[in-house]
Amino acid sequence: MAHINLPDGVPGIRGPMMFRPETAKPLNELADVLLCGPHSLSRGERELIATFVSSENDCKYCQTIHGAIAAHHLSGNAELVANVKRDFESAGVSDKMKALLAIAGNVRRGGKHVTAEDVERARRRGATDLEIHDTVLIAAVFCMCNRYVDGLATWAPEDPDFYRSRAAMLAEHGYAASTLAVGAAYGQVK
Amino acid sequence: MAHINLPDGVPGIRGPMMFRPETAKPLNELADVLLCGPHSLSRGERELIATFVSSENDCKYCQTIHGAIAAHHLSGNAELVANVKRDFESAGVSDKMKALLAIAGNVRRGGKHVTAEDVERARRRGATDLEIHDTVLIAAVFCMCNRYVDGLATWAPEDPDFYRSRAAMLAEHGYAASTLAVGAAYGQVK
Repeated sequence: MAHINLPDGVPGIRGPMMFRPETAKPLNELADVLLCGPHSLSRGERELIATFVSSENDCKYCQTIHGAIAAHHLSGNAELVANVKRDFESAGVSDKMKALLAIAGNVRRGGKHVTAEDVERARRRGATDLEIHDTVLIAAVFCMCNRYVDGLATWAPEDPDFYRSRAAMLAEHGYAASTLAVGAAYGQVK
Repeated sequence: MAHINLPDGVPGIRGPMMFRPETAKPLNELADVLLCGPHSLSRGERELIATFVSSENDCKYCQTIHGAIAAHHLSGNAELVANVKRDFESAGVSDKMKALLAIAGNVRRGGKHVTAEDVERARRRGATDLEIHDTVLIAAVFCMCNRYVDGLATWAPEDPDFYRSRAAMLAEHGYAASTLAVGAAYGQVK
């Protein structure tokens, strides 16, 4: 049971977002800019960073929903998502992505864990300042979201169909628009 | 030196915010709603939560600027801010605030560290669901900001006058409006 009185049957971050729409608005706008906007990193790559950080933080809802969105953008390749979570250095992603995931992992431990060597490795592998900036911010944002979701003890559905269905909606419409339709989305798979 | 090429002479989070205004906009809007909007917790109390979390995360810029803003709202009582950072259970804040700071400290460790007992203690001391929600979210937001600021190795000025001057501007105008004036603000105390 959640620590506060959240709307019934609304999973993960969507419960507190319905409880407090004033803070949900900028949170969704931030996610849309970082994860859905035009970018030199693909939407799948950015969702992989979000999934990896959420997995390291052991946040079931965030790692499952963002893993499903990442897979959606990666032609349904759920095995790649699982490999990144297990050991990104041996996963089938680019050398640049491995360097960015290493930075994201260190941001998760704490900002000061990111070293000049981490950043230099990413740069040598072709990462731009914007890609490094956004990797740091995506990792930091998910350290927030994971704590928001688990700090209020929100509900994470067991049914994998829920995550696949919601992932498709988020991938198509983005975060802000999909929040409005959350009740309907859950209704579709119940 | 910062890990990426940020504007010269712009301290803390303001450097990456100038580098990436698209993400700065929702970040500032979130801070304005949580820290400056109408609330049953005073602005000083909310800034104390932000300061405490930033101090526990050892983020020099965030704990110093938000500590200065907290003091500004608490009639200049910088000693109270220092006491909360050192040992909030013995500091001169309400019993409700002590329970909320305990929740914030556990959010910082990781969302699952927040227990039903933590929340029950806050409720017994008069905390509402909104106050508990916002405490969790403020703590989570600063786990993000601290990682953003330190993960990019941004510059934190040594001069206490910088923080006092900027705190007064932030307290008066809020976060979004003050970001636009950051260059001028730093110019005033150089």
